[in-house]
Amino acid sequence: MGGTDDNLTAILYKQGDLRLENRPIPEPKDDEVLLRMSAVGICGSDVHYLTKGRIGDFIVTSPMIIGHEAAGIVAKCGKNVKNLKIGDRVAVEPGVPCRRCDHCKTGQYNLCPDVVFCATPPVHGNLSRYYTHDADYCFKLPDHVSLEEGALLEPLSVGVQACRRAGVTLGSTVLICGAGPIGLVSLLVAKSMGAGKIVIADLAANRLAVAKELGADEVLTVEMSSDAAELAKQVKAKLGGEMPNVTIECSGAESMIKLAILATRSGGCVVLVGLGPAEVTIPVVNAAVREVDIRGVFRYANCYPAALALVASGKVNVKRLITHNFKLEETLEAFETARTGKGGAIKVMIHC
Amino acid sequence: MGGTDDNLTAILYKQGDLRLENRPIPEPKDDEVLLRMSAVGICGSDVHYLTKGRIGDFIVTSPMIIGHEAAGIVAKCGKNVKNLKIGDRVAVEPGVPCRRCDHCKTGQYNLCPDVVFCATPPVHGNLSRYYTHDADYCFKLPDHVSLEEGALLEPLSVGVQACRRAGVTLGSTVLICGAGPIGLVSLLVAKSMGAGKIVIADLAANRLAVAKELGADEVLTVEMSSDAAELAKQVKAKLGGEMPNVTIECSGAESMIKLAILATRSGGCVVLVGLGPAEVTIPVVNAAVREVDIRGVFRYANCYPAALALVASGKVNVKRLITHNFKLEETLEAFETARTGKGGAIKVMIHC
Amino acid sequence: MGGTDDNLTAILYKQGDLRLENRPIPEPKDDEVLLRMSAVGICGSDVHYLTKGRIGDFIVTSPMIIGHEAAGIVAKCGKNVKNLKIGDRVAVEPGVPCRRCDHCKTGQYNLCPDVVFCATPPVHGNLSRYYTHDADYCFKLPDHVSLEEGALLEPLSVGVQACRRAGVTLGSTVLICGAGPIGLVSLLVAKSMGAGKIVIADLAANRLAVAKELGADEVLTVEMSSDAAELAKQVKAKLGGEMPNVTIECSGAESMIKLAILATRSGGCVVLVGLGPAEVTIPVVNAAVREVDIRGVFRYANCYPAALALVASGKVNVKRLITHNFKLEETLEAFETARTGKGGAIKVMIHC
Amino acid sequence: MGGTDDNLTAILYKQGDLRLENRPIPEPKDDEVLLRMSAVGICGSDVHYLTKGRIGDFIVTSPMIIGHEAAGIVAKCGKNVKNLKIGDRVAVEPGVPCRRCDHCKTGQYNLCPDVVFCATPPVHGNLSRYYTHDADYCFKLPDHVSLEEGALLEPLSVGVQACRRAGVTLGSTVLICGAGPIGLVSLLVAKSMGAGKIVIADLAANRLAVAKELGADEVLTVEMSSDAAELAKQVKAKLGGEMPNVTIECSGAESMIKLAILATRSGGCVVLVGLGPAEVTIPVVNAAVREVDIRGVFRYANCYPAALALVASGKVNVKRLITHNFKLEETLEAFETARTGKGGAIKVMIHC
Repeated sequence: MGGTDDNLTAILYKQGDLRLENRPIPEPKDDEVLLRMSAVGICGSDVHYLTKGRIGDFIVTSPMIIGHEAAGIVAKCGKNVKNLKIGDRVAVEPGVPCRRCDHCKTGQYNLCPDVVFCATPPVHGNLSRYYTHDADYCFKLPDHVSLEEGALLEPLSVGVQACRRAGVTLGSTVLICGAGPIGLVSLLVAKSMGAGKIVIADLAANRLAVAKELGADEVLTVEMSSDAAELAKQVKAKLGGEMPNVTIECSGAESMIKLAILATRSGGCVVLVGLGPAEVTIPVVNAAVREVDIRGVFRYANCYPAALALVASGKVNVKRLITHNFKLEETLEAFETARTGKGGAIKVMIHC
Repeated sequence: MGGTDDNLTAILYKQGDLRLENRPIPEPKDDEVLLRMSAVGICGSDVHYLTKGRIGDFIVTSPMIIGHEAAGIVAKCGKNVKNLKIGDRVAVEPGVPCRRCDHCKTGQYNLCPDVVFCATPPVHGNLSRYYTHDADYCFKLPDHVSLEEGALLEPLSVGVQACRRAGVTLGSTVLICGAGPIGLVSLLVAKSMGAGKIVIADLAANRLAVAKELGADEVLTVEMSSDAAELAKQVKAKLGGEMPNVTIECSGAESMIKLAILATRSGGCVVLVGLGPAEVTIPVVNAAVREVDIRGVFRYANCYPAALALVASGKVNVKRLITHNFKLEETLEAFETARTGKGGAIKVMIHC
Repeated sequence: MGGTDDNLTAILYKQGDLRLENRPIPEPKDDEVLLRMSAVGICGSDVHYLTKGRIGDFIVTSPMIIGHEAAGIVAKCGKNVKNLKIGDRVAVEPGVPCRRCDHCKTGQYNLCPDVVFCATPPVHGNLSRYYTHDADYCFKLPDHVSLEEGALLEPLSVGVQACRRAGVTLGSTVLICGAGPIGLVSLLVAKSMGAGKIVIADLAANRLAVAKELGADEVLTVEMSSDAAELAKQVKAKLGGEMPNVTIECSGAESMIKLAILATRSGGCVVLVGLGPAEVTIPVVNAAVREVDIRGVFRYANCYPAALALVASGKVNVKRLITHNFKLEETLEAFETARTGKGGAIKVMIHC
Repeated sequence: MGGTDDNLTAILYKQGDLRLENRPIPEPKDDEVLLRMSAVGICGSDVHYLTKGRIGDFIVTSPMIIGHEAAGIVAKCGKNVKNLKIGDRVAVEPGVPCRRCDHCKTGQYNLCPDVVFCATPPVHGNLSRYYTHDADYCFKLPDHVSLEEGALLEPLSVGVQACRRAGVTLGSTVLICGAGPIGLVSLLVAKSMGAGKIVIADLAANRLAVAKELGADEVLTVEMSSDAAELAKQVKAKLGGEMPNVTIECSGAESMIKLAILATRSGGCVVLVGLGPAEVTIPVVNAAVREVDIRGVFRYANCYPAALALVASGKVNVKRLITHNFKLEETLEAFETARTGKGGAIKVMIHC
């Protein structure tokens, strides 16, 4: 191990069984590039596949390469590739859609039923030394943007999709439920889109402290037993008597979804980013008669360019999210850190 | 009673206590017109106030004039009125907003917290011989549009708001849950906006027969015990294997809201028009990961002109909705007909 | 000639030189189908290439198969094709984009710089017995929709794109400048989307007569010397004192573009569908201070499904546009008819 | 002069004739507040009325109080006023619409034909000690926002309207033509809404230097004789080979409007903020076939809250625009400074 032309790869064999193995270096197809991978972040879904072996109907039934928050360096180009050249440093948008269905044609390719998405069973991910990907889903990084930042464009793109779907715009007041990585990227993006005051709610004081540091105007500590209607009043109070135009729900918890609906101003919008129980009970009449929209957010479409522009402009310090770094050889330890959250882990980054 | 200058008026004193009384003829303010009322339809909410004395937090605590689906003839103009003159036949948009809050300024005046809306306690309605209203919320009818059609612009405007919020457009496939008056006007409006195939679902075969007559492409008979996932499959089958882009939920029933979510195509939209229990359990993850929006519909804003254009163009036969006609003196019998639905009542119209 | 397996093909060698020749029957690629062509309409651009040899920067420099308004029957499927099978009757959307650029990914594939569009030099068209095309740009026709109607989906899609870009919706009042084929399809589509009153303007009385027959509420005869401001007043008068929300400009003439701007209501929209001189002088301050948007329309994106739904619903009689029919062997005569417009030609259809 | 209860007022009698006079202190109507004016900025239109006596069809035919970029302190409240109290510091949105026309009801009140707008003949402005205004068009300033900043919300709102109409969003690349006050506020707003790279073009190096200081990524020096097509290439080069999504044209010059169209990416948008000659010649086919929208910007609607949120958040240093300060008694000198631009004047502020 350790040579420049091996292809050490992190493979999830089944629930609880993650291994590092050497695999053949793949050959890029005509529209693909071969990448020498550099930085791969660990996402909550990666940890979930490791610990549970499944997410909903997606089940690990055969060995699957893990990892989908990634950046690398172009090592070889397929013959049709024109937008990249060897040596280019790129961020990898991990889902490649079919390009032919109605969703793809109308710009909602995140909803393509035939999308091939890294590390969603049975599709392989990219936590490895070498990896091939469609060239048009690789985004060249400017010189002053690091490969770690490139890897972070993945969660940042979720924040972009969330804020776009929510209609965040200049002067929006925003409530964010949940101060984990997705809540934090949503915070960064909402501020960058011109949001006015932002309140963020979470159970954990240390997460809220990071949110404050990253620019939240107000934080709200909630408890498992908190009453949604009561919390909604607190949100309004923290906003000087106004209700937020937009709520970005990142926890998936029923109580937070209720809060999201009750707290949001009439005519406003709740986006559901966090996923929890399949069914929840919601105050539907309250939402309906106040025309509070409830919109889902599934991954992202056309968000990488905006996420990259945001990082490139220097407006957000996305690197603040990285709390731990590991080498590819230390993958198991990296996953253990991500799983336990020890040491205040927000984002764990693996360097290949 | 019966003179041309009396002001016979239908007053709901309290739950179950509706009376006809003579009241003084009001004087229009500077921006108002005095109307000689002509046709007033009975809405489900009118019946609900009569039989229950309340809808949600709106409670009949003092005598209230009933009625809000109305049209009349201008009898007198306030001194600032320029858009109307004596003798003009007009439809009455029953809610007049404050004109000063953010919702009013941004065009969402249906969400104005200070709106004055006919026959919503404690505001008086217009089932009477004479009535005053802000002139700019009265819409002049062309000669070939009848006053009964003018009164029907009210429910038709709910259909316009529903279809606009749902984003119905050329080629949309649509599922409508519920074939009562609101389901039927939504059907008429959706077709007028260019919807492709429309499926309508209801418990009652006679309602579905009317829907079919009014242009529904497919009907789906549901039962109280029907399984939402199973019904969703039937909807898809009726649409030749496609899921609807849009679902307009007009029943308020939890099972129908579930159907609405499960049946709607990824990236599509469910609008909630019908109101039922305050809280319902919904398949939230299914909605979220398929980015199916859930949007409420509350009354309407800026819909009367479109509803009027629709009727004036002759594209829809909205008069088909009127099944029964009564004189003002027969108001109690009219409400009894509306309450029981006897004789296949869809819309009961009172002539003043 | 005339056998079922020849491939008689109409080839434009250069300006004024159109020939019929037999060509080899092509083989479909993996994602393509081979079509037995059935109906191909002649478009103004086809005639323009024949008579001028060019449109703007697109120049016929080598022999090019003509034709792009087409429908046919699937004769063979490439190995990846799943949405179609042999014998399916399909309409052909003539432009296939790169699927990889930003425009393609965001749903504006009509703006793809690498689009391959039938009969736009140097790309071959489909006026021939056999032709191959990407399967996902072929749309299966229901049994009750004819192949001639399938061919007409092409101009109808221009009308759909125009009306969508213009924001035509329920109750819109519309001015259409020009009553040629594109003005007429825009009329049909606008009505289908719920437009209220529609005025159509043209120089030619016979075109206006057809427009009237197809549903125009009002017609306006213009002359080369007409003053735009004066015509705008006439439009307003014909709309009962209201200005149109939307103007669809299909002539490309400077005087009509001026009329379009002056006639449109503040906050409304002008779409430019017709192309004339490269530069025109417009009343820009009038447009700017009244926030009248000026939007271009280039071909169409995602319009075929809506156009097909419209025809399939029976709402529009698009066949009325076909005034002349020819066999493939009569192609030269067909082009002559289209060029001269003799016999009141609107749309000339060639049957292969 | 100089007492706290006089009402010194700047009155434009006619072209070139601006005088300071004492006027009676007005009494607020029921929905109005009386303001003790504090800061009033001078706008280019104010100078234009002084030097030319007219702007287009708006002509100074009788003495008119000048000034419309203003902030003050509530001195008295009409009896219906609930949103403000004596002592509140407020920014004044200078146009009060009719609240009853279609434009008002749909949220486009800037297009209201009956709007009453400060210092647009024959309506009086607010450069005086005391002034009354509708309370709902006064916006309370937080303690940390100064009255000068309050006055600057007026030009800032033009920037908000321009960027909203242009669809500026996260990652947009932007070209701004003209680096005067409106170009500069558009720059500030575009950055705040998440724009990526911004290029600003002007004739004057000193203006471009200020733009650079305020955050422009690139500046482009143009000359009267510059060729639009050539400049468009330079814009693209400055953006690393990309064309801007959005161009905000603030000069009104024909050559800049041409540049705006040619430089903007296909599918993008040009907004026209600057006003120049009534008619200009534009490359209309270029705009149409690339679907580059051309949208006007007239004042603003619903922009003050966003502009205030932007200043209150501290994201922009709008005070940098103020280059000169005068007392009300020095009004003539202040106008002279604004007219000549001497001392690098950008925004001249008068303190009442």
